[in-house]
Amino acid sequence: MSSTATRAGARRSKQSFDLQSYVAERTEQVNVALNLFLPTEKTAPATIHKAMRYSLFAGGKRMRPALTLAAAEACGGDISEAMPLACAVECIHTYSLIHDDLPAMDNDDFRRGKPTNHKVFGEGIAVLAGDALLTQAFEIAAQCRTWKRYDMRQIILEIAKASGSLQLIAGQVADLEGEGKKLTKAQLEYIHERKASALLCCSVRLGGMSANCTPKQLEALTEFGYCVGLAFQIIDDILDITQTTEQLGKTAGKDTTAQKATYPSIVGLEKSKKIAQQLTDRAFQALTVFKGKAVALEALAEYLLKRDR
Amino acid sequence: MSSTATRAGARRSKQSFDLQSYVAERTEQVNVALNLFLPTEKTAPATIHKAMRYSLFAGGKRMRPALTLAAAEACGGDISEAMPLACAVECIHTYSLIHDDLPAMDNDDFRRGKPTNHKVFGEGIAVLAGDALLTQAFEIAAQCRTWKRYDMRQIILEIAKASGSLQLIAGQVADLEGEGKKLTKAQLEYIHERKASALLCCSVRLGGMSANCTPKQLEALTEFGYCVGLAFQIIDDILDITQTTEQLGKTAGKDTTAQKATYPSIVGLEKSKKIAQQLTDRAFQALTVFKGKAVALEALAEYLLKRDR
Repeated sequence: MSSTATRAGARRSKQSFDLQSYVAERTEQVNVALNLFLPTEKTAPATIHKAMRYSLFAGGKRMRPALTLAAAEACGGDISEAMPLACAVECIHTYSLIHDDLPAMDNDDFRRGKPTNHKVFGEGIAVLAGDALLTQAFEIAAQCRTWKRYDMRQIILEIAKASGSLQLIAGQVADLEGEGKKLTKAQLEYIHERKASALLCCSVRLGGMSANCTPKQLEALTEFGYCVGLAFQIIDDILDITQTTEQLGKTAGKDTTAQKATYPSIVGLEKSKKIAQQLTDRAFQALTVFKGKAVALEALAEYLLKRDR
Repeated sequence: MSSTATRAGARRSKQSFDLQSYVAERTEQVNVALNLFLPTEKTAPATIHKAMRYSLFAGGKRMRPALTLAAAEACGGDISEAMPLACAVECIHTYSLIHDDLPAMDNDDFRRGKPTNHKVFGEGIAVLAGDALLTQAFEIAAQCRTWKRYDMRQIILEIAKASGSLQLIAGQVADLEGEGKKLTKAQLEYIHERKASALLCCSVRLGGMSANCTPKQLEALTEFGYCVGLAFQIIDDILDITQTTEQLGKTAGKDTTAQKATYPSIVGLEKSKKIAQQLTDRAFQALTVFKGKAVALEALAEYLLKRDR
């Protein structure tokens, strides 16, 4: 096939790409897999498994696992091989939300339109449910097969580093410490890179690894994940001030209440939207290496930019 | 060497075994390794690394890593190969203590004679420091080499299962839920097996794996870890009522205050001591498979039984 034909095919498939059906199908597949990986609600001690499942099946958008699977597809891989990694990432994401919502941290009563984990199960169990999901993530990840270019060591290090004290946890610490302080754009970027980009990067990189991707593809996915993650977090900041609690399914305006620095508060609303768009453009640019095979990744990035909740 | 000579050698080395020097040397080696594995106190965000190190270097007895290294030696292995796993286990142990001490759980103000993590850094950072140590454990474990009989997958699964919602976390959940209730001996055993035996078993098994141990040796280590863990927890219960806060370095009598079921409260003090002794005998019995090469494991088990804090 000529390069012109490939580009035409890419355009066609992008135009005809039905994101809604794609996301619905992937969400269902991820839910089925997570359900199999997690102990049942009746497994003793029932409380902890109920609490883990309560937050894991609270209607999350499954964007990170969708990105893992889409990255695997972009690299010519099989989604069934990427599935344990997609589920591991979702467990990490859910654990971080449970702990972030605790009274000692962001003190949130609602998440995805439902009472937060500690509101239902109490703080002690909420801490343990987060711990258990974090641990479960590694147990699930260790169940994937390995590939010529990427072994189990690299998979585990990828997840541990993205979730560790230099990335995901560093973001939450800096976020906590930044409350009520006037931050610079660079300081806010430090937080956003860690709170959002780290795990999004990890999500797509793991997908690529599960498809035994080339170093060049891995680099492209890294850039894509970084940009989409940062854009995602800026949009979160924007939605927090432009949407209502009902629209968001979580407390709106909480950044202002908690005196948290946000992109809109530092560079203004319009500039924030522009930066998010620029980051998304950069993300699209990174995908050119996949020569039209990354339609799902493109569609997901576009969705994340245009979302209203 | 004849079998009689081997036995005589084993007796000699056991008699001359200097546990105090052995533990001091291992503690030092583990501390050096942990110090290298952990980000420095100055690494940003400094708060989280200070908090992680505060609890990790709070003067813990390093019994679990010592057991990992001793198990490796018993199987003819090299302690340098077991070291990442020994450090991983200590990170898991420390994370579990930080979270267990939180006000929403056991609400302890002192640990190892020092204010608990949340007393120094606040609850939010204490939760995150625990999370970070748990994550760090997997990052460290992923840095060990692998062996003919045991690959990275098995190493990670070993740690994740022992620390997960069916073992270590299950123990803490059952412990929380058992407060103020009258428990049976079987229920208390369920808690103890998970709160203590799970991670002790894991510690010695990992040591064995790092020495590419035989299935028979692994089985012996499992039995040893199970028995020592249970004995350890029973002795903890005993010390809680027989020692003072100063002697223990942590709040004494807290089981009674929290109306927690303990071995002494269910079967009485003398019977508890007897059970602990029987378990230690069983642990020694398990070690016969090592034909006198497990002197350090024997000495450690004996120490754990006779300790007064």
